Amino acid sequence: MLQNVPALPGIFRFLDLAGIAVFALSGALLAVRLRRDFVTLAFFALVTGVGGGSVRDLLIDAPVFWVRDPLVAPLCLAVALLAWFSPERWWEGRLLVWADAVGLAAYAVLGTVKALDYGLTPVTGALMGVITGCAGGIIRDVLAGQPSILMRPEIYITAATLAAALAAGGTVLGLPREVVWPGAALAGFVLRGAAIRWSLAIPEYGRKRNGPGS
Amino acid sequence: MLQNVPALPGIFRFLDLAGIAVFALSGALLAVRLRRDFVTLAFFALVTGVGGGSVRDLLIDAPVFWVRDPLVAPLCLAVALLAWFSPERWWEGRLLVWADAVGLAAYAVLGTVKALDYGLTPVTGALMGVITGCAGGIIRDVLAGQPSILMRPEIYITAATLAAALAAGGTVLGLPREVVWPGAALAGFVLRGAAIRWSLAIPEYGRKRNGPGS
Amino acid sequence: MLQNVPALPGIFRFLDLAGIAVFALSGALLAVRLRRDFVTLAFFALVTGVGGGSVRDLLIDAPVFWVRDPLVAPLCLAVALLAWFSPERWWEGRLLVWADAVGLAAYAVLGTVKALDYGLTPVTGALMGVITGCAGGIIRDVLAGQPSILMRPEIYITAATLAAALAAGGTVLGLPREVVWPGAALAGFVLRGAAIRWSLAIPEYGRKRNGPGS
Repeated sequence: MLQNVPALPGIFRFLDLAGIAVFALSGALLAVRLRRDFVTLAFFALVTGVGGGSVRDLLIDAPVFWVRDPLVAPLCLAVALLAWFSPERWWEGRLLVWADAVGLAAYAVLGTVKALDYGLTPVTGALMGVITGCAGGIIRDVLAGQPSILMRPEIYITAATLAAALAAGGTVLGLPREVVWPGAALAGFVLRGAAIRWSLAIPEYGRKRNGPGS
Repeated sequence: MLQNVPALPGIFRFLDLAGIAVFALSGALLAVRLRRDFVTLAFFALVTGVGGGSVRDLLIDAPVFWVRDPLVAPLCLAVALLAWFSPERWWEGRLLVWADAVGLAAYAVLGTVKALDYGLTPVTGALMGVITGCAGGIIRDVLAGQPSILMRPEIYITAATLAAALAAGGTVLGLPREVVWPGAALAGFVLRGAAIRWSLAIPEYGRKRNGPGS
Repeated sequence: MLQNVPALPGIFRFLDLAGIAVFALSGALLAVRLRRDFVTLAFFALVTGVGGGSVRDLLIDAPVFWVRDPLVAPLCLAVALLAWFSPERWWEGRLLVWADAVGLAAYAVLGTVKALDYGLTPVTGALMGVITGCAGGIIRDVLAGQPSILMRPEIYITAATLAAALAAGGTVLGLPREVVWPGAALAGFVLRGAAIRWSLAIPEYGRKRNGPGS
């Protein structure tokens, strides 16, 4: 049941750590905005950085990826220190939103691929990719008492779904992963990027065909 | 440690999927009432449909029941599509509340039986039944930022507790499951139904013997 | 992968159950303050009593400690009955806060030691100790819709971190556990106690060097 985590080539190991760092930073900066203390900030960095992958690993019965990894927890702590000691204006622009979009797309693909490697069907595999990309941020928002991304009409989970579905579809069709992985991640990133750039939102229930207030 | 999930006879497989569908619908309809988009609606359908059983399976160290099941995730997505495209007035009456009562009672019994099959004691086994019946709805409400069933005095968890306790007791006493399972589920359903029909609530602390405001 | 839980000597078994009881009581009393019914109160007692250890066990891939334990769940139910039937003035003083400080320190140490015993690195092992001490209370507050300890500047998680770090450090250095365990727990308790006694708080972001309102 417990197979080995697929050995990631060097570039993916780097992307993986980069994605964790970006998500950890988004957690730490939420704590900064809420004017919390350093311990809370470090806790939010960890939860946001590893939350999505932890939920995925628990669901697919894999060892939780960061618990025995010598780098991931120290990386989240380093990110927390960076957020605490750096000037807040570093993070005021949209840099973080764009970095988060990269992390979201990469995580959705990596999460899907890992789930398929554990023998899941394409549908549940893609679902695990979506969870990997989104659950960390959802847990962060619930713990902070903020409305989570689930409650906002932004194209966020949708972009993760696109990347995860393409990754699952391409893998099932037997396409080479050198094509499928970057392509799926790019598609998710472009959709999320378009949503950021033009403030796109998906229609909410009741505005779709019943008219407002229906 | 990881035994096989008990093979359910056909009727129980059907009841199981029916219970998932009812809970998924309650999640999707909460998203509809909150005027969310389809992705959120599908996420709520899945979380509510499988949340309780997932928590149970993680706690008892069983493979999470829906992750390798080819039907459960697509069923939740189908329910989400139904909720999105159907006229909202279909769901305005008390149909859903009553269907939820059926799901609650059935899940409390099935969750208890599975836990006992994994070697739990009657007390923790019954607790797992209660968790199976109630945790999906609690997670749904927390994610939506709504007061959860835990915070309301309705007889809901109490009904699940009755069904689970009867299922655990009957199983421990060696009574035939053809009697215990339907009997326990019926008792839970009748109690929940009475609470719905006559708006019964259980006394809250401070109203029980100290008088209001004490 | 699934090793045996380390056999605790009698005194630690007692401390372990005492810690569970204290945390369970804090959950039950929150439900009392919110004027909830007995079922909610029992649920809160269980979730708070076993929540932190459950999250730890799931993350380190250990069997969840209370699920097959014949005493823990009945103990939480007994605590819930005590909270329900006892006069509320019993719990009005600071008794509970101090008992909670004992539980926090003991849990942070026991959680760390168990995680190290499962082969974790000192950093993730100490993190598991912090989670063991704090996660039950966080889950309790999220379920109750209260601002969690994460959102308050009290020295709480910090005290757990001190105890866990000392326990991990001492264990890695090979010091005798008769010294490390009580010493680490005492240090965490003293820090938490000082915070309770003199209402200490740790500085929040923005008050640290940028001045208020920055």
